[in-house]
Amino acid sequence: MRLKEDVNREEFRCIFCGKSYPVNIFQSFCFDCHEPLLYYASKKGQKIFKRSAHPLEKFTDFLPLSRFDLDLSLGEGNTPLIPLKHISQEMHFPILYAKNEYTNPTSSFKDRGTTIAVQKAVSIGITKIGTVSTGNMASSTAAYGAKAGLKAIVLVKDDTADNKLLSAGMYAPHLIKVKGDYGALFWESFNLGKTYNIYFSNSVDPFRIEGYKVIGLEMYSQLNLQTPDYLFVPVSSGGHLIGLMKAFLELKHIGWISKLPFFVGIQASGSSPIAKAFQDNKEKYARIEKSKTIAHAISNPDPPGGNIVLKLIRENSGIILDVTDQEILEAQSLLAKREGLFCLTASATTLAGLIKFSQKHKFKERDKIVLILTGTGLKGLEHIDKHSLDLHTTPLEDLQSIIKTLVD
Amino acid sequence: MRLKEDVNREEFRCIFCGKSYPVNIFQSFCFDCHEPLLYYASKKGQKIFKRSAHPLEKFTDFLPLSRFDLDLSLGEGNTPLIPLKHISQEMHFPILYAKNEYTNPTSSFKDRGTTIAVQKAVSIGITKIGTVSTGNMASSTAAYGAKAGLKAIVLVKDDTADNKLLSAGMYAPHLIKVKGDYGALFWESFNLGKTYNIYFSNSVDPFRIEGYKVIGLEMYSQLNLQTPDYLFVPVSSGGHLIGLMKAFLELKHIGWISKLPFFVGIQASGSSPIAKAFQDNKEKYARIEKSKTIAHAISNPDPPGGNIVLKLIRENSGIILDVTDQEILEAQSLLAKREGLFCLTASATTLAGLIKFSQKHKFKERDKIVLILTGTGLKGLEHIDKHSLDLHTTPLEDLQSIIKTLVD
Repeated sequence: MRLKEDVNREEFRCIFCGKSYPVNIFQSFCFDCHEPLLYYASKKGQKIFKRSAHPLEKFTDFLPLSRFDLDLSLGEGNTPLIPLKHISQEMHFPILYAKNEYTNPTSSFKDRGTTIAVQKAVSIGITKIGTVSTGNMASSTAAYGAKAGLKAIVLVKDDTADNKLLSAGMYAPHLIKVKGDYGALFWESFNLGKTYNIYFSNSVDPFRIEGYKVIGLEMYSQLNLQTPDYLFVPVSSGGHLIGLMKAFLELKHIGWISKLPFFVGIQASGSSPIAKAFQDNKEKYARIEKSKTIAHAISNPDPPGGNIVLKLIRENSGIILDVTDQEILEAQSLLAKREGLFCLTASATTLAGLIKFSQKHKFKERDKIVLILTGTGLKGLEHIDKHSLDLHTTPLEDLQSIIKTLVD
Repeated sequence: MRLKEDVNREEFRCIFCGKSYPVNIFQSFCFDCHEPLLYYASKKGQKIFKRSAHPLEKFTDFLPLSRFDLDLSLGEGNTPLIPLKHISQEMHFPILYAKNEYTNPTSSFKDRGTTIAVQKAVSIGITKIGTVSTGNMASSTAAYGAKAGLKAIVLVKDDTADNKLLSAGMYAPHLIKVKGDYGALFWESFNLGKTYNIYFSNSVDPFRIEGYKVIGLEMYSQLNLQTPDYLFVPVSSGGHLIGLMKAFLELKHIGWISKLPFFVGIQASGSSPIAKAFQDNKEKYARIEKSKTIAHAISNPDPPGGNIVLKLIRENSGIILDVTDQEILEAQSLLAKREGLFCLTASATTLAGLIKFSQKHKFKERDKIVLILTGTGLKGLEHIDKHSLDLHTTPLEDLQSIIKTLVD
């Protein structure tokens, strides 16, 4: 007999103290533990992957949406899972794929989270959304806000570069450069959100995390209902990795899969509080003073989802490791020149992490490894060394002799 | 009775003199007319859209591929067709969509053509590809070349900006800046290609054009096998529009559709030789001295496919018009702030063209209009006026008062 309360019950839950809260878009942290809350639901009946070209419709049984409004979507998802045969052969890896999340509408995985947050916001009558971000999340929130006709407020650091302001600013949000502590700004945004009815969907927002689940569900579907054996993902606030783990934990919970992937979260060495806590076997991370890495998109000295990541990784299977800027740049170049994929430095941590991990770990021949490429290299051209290009200059009349030298 | 020669016969054909040529990857212009050749094939049996998630497999009956190698693909295609309800309601347009081609792997529609060119090249044992380009086509060719393990040679103008060099150069092609006449370089590349066995897949390459067909077939499929009534597309060399027209002409030829879309090709006023010839009712365009427009991606003073475009548009249905830089910038801003789509200036010509076209044309209520967004705004941030942003600066302690003003 099905219990009445199992039917479509939903809650926010603190996985530290176990306390559950009613779902409230303005209250996403535990009052006692101060940790981010996660969304859980018991839906009626058996879950299925629906026949639909749109991922939010296809995976709706796994998502916090009772209905799905196509008019709020920018066509996110259905991102390619690309075999990386050159790198895998040359470096003696088993079956290797990249899940290319930078083919999303605003060129990063953030769209996966934003689309759910905006669906939810509109469904309950919210008219103003906001975010605290300097990069991908700012563009994503501003774009989906524009599509939904919401007022959007984007809070950025005082020293945010012009090109990042423009990438988000084109969608005409209110952009506010805030001078002061960035961590304090994160918390203050929630207070202001409550006061002025603005839904601040920041990095570890429970609905955003539900959106990241779709990346996991989609790759499972693309692999013909097989689980990847290893999943490499960059870790900043922790929200992305939490979403991916939640996807496979839910598939395991309903008995569709028997074994979780081994999750490898990667941080940049210059900003690796979670990796450090993992290596030191600490339950909680310690905020670091200052991040110093070229991988700006994952440069977070005080990652709000850090403790959840540590707990989930320890209770299940995985590790958190860190890679240097040099390793990141080499991996970025390798992905571009051997596989035709030009991703952001933050995304290249996945390959750098795989190379590092493989030095102490033996894969099986049929293991399936997935690297998640989170953002496009076009947003980080300033890190590319122009002198590394194979660049020649010639008058037209001498072109033939140059080409002869190059191809002979 | 099926004629023997109808079975899988393929040829390159000059649509001006009617002469047909054997398919030759190194000979893509008519010896007599000097016009680009187009690819035609008669395939055995009835054509179908196959059940496949990959567009090259789904539409293989319409493509010049006898087989399809997934390992050469970067996951191009399946781009979203997004309803633009805000713009359509506010400006009293009928049913309006954007086909978002900038969600392709290198962020432009060029990937559609490059993937076919590379499939073909590899299938006949070509090991070196090249292109003459300054922007999107350079990145696309370099990326697919890298994926296929081909040597890639990218010829660019001497004054190409560093960020464009980097976007293509990351894939490690041989990049050659050539001083001299760009038009002459286009023709010289074919000579060098023949000499050194390099397949120069330039703007109006017949296989590239076959790839652009897929955009048309895909939107027809996404519209549940209905033809758009109007199709707006930016016109530079002409290759893209030729591909789209070819898609619908072929669907009409096999009887799947009875009526073609009305094709609206749009050029930037500062570089509009084809629009000018169309307006002046000339059969051939005249090369212009110098292009002057912010829409660099469609700035072509001597478009090699121009005469084919004029001929096909006249023989079927459509027009070529031009829009000013000011109209382009306004349309670009409108697409971003009302629909969450941040495209390149060249792509924004589609909406600018629709606005201009609608001033003298009455649509029916149920007409379906599709704008093709060809490239991402991230590749053209230099054209955005920073002063147009709604940008505020404040210390954290005054944030509340700013937000109060903005949302009240």
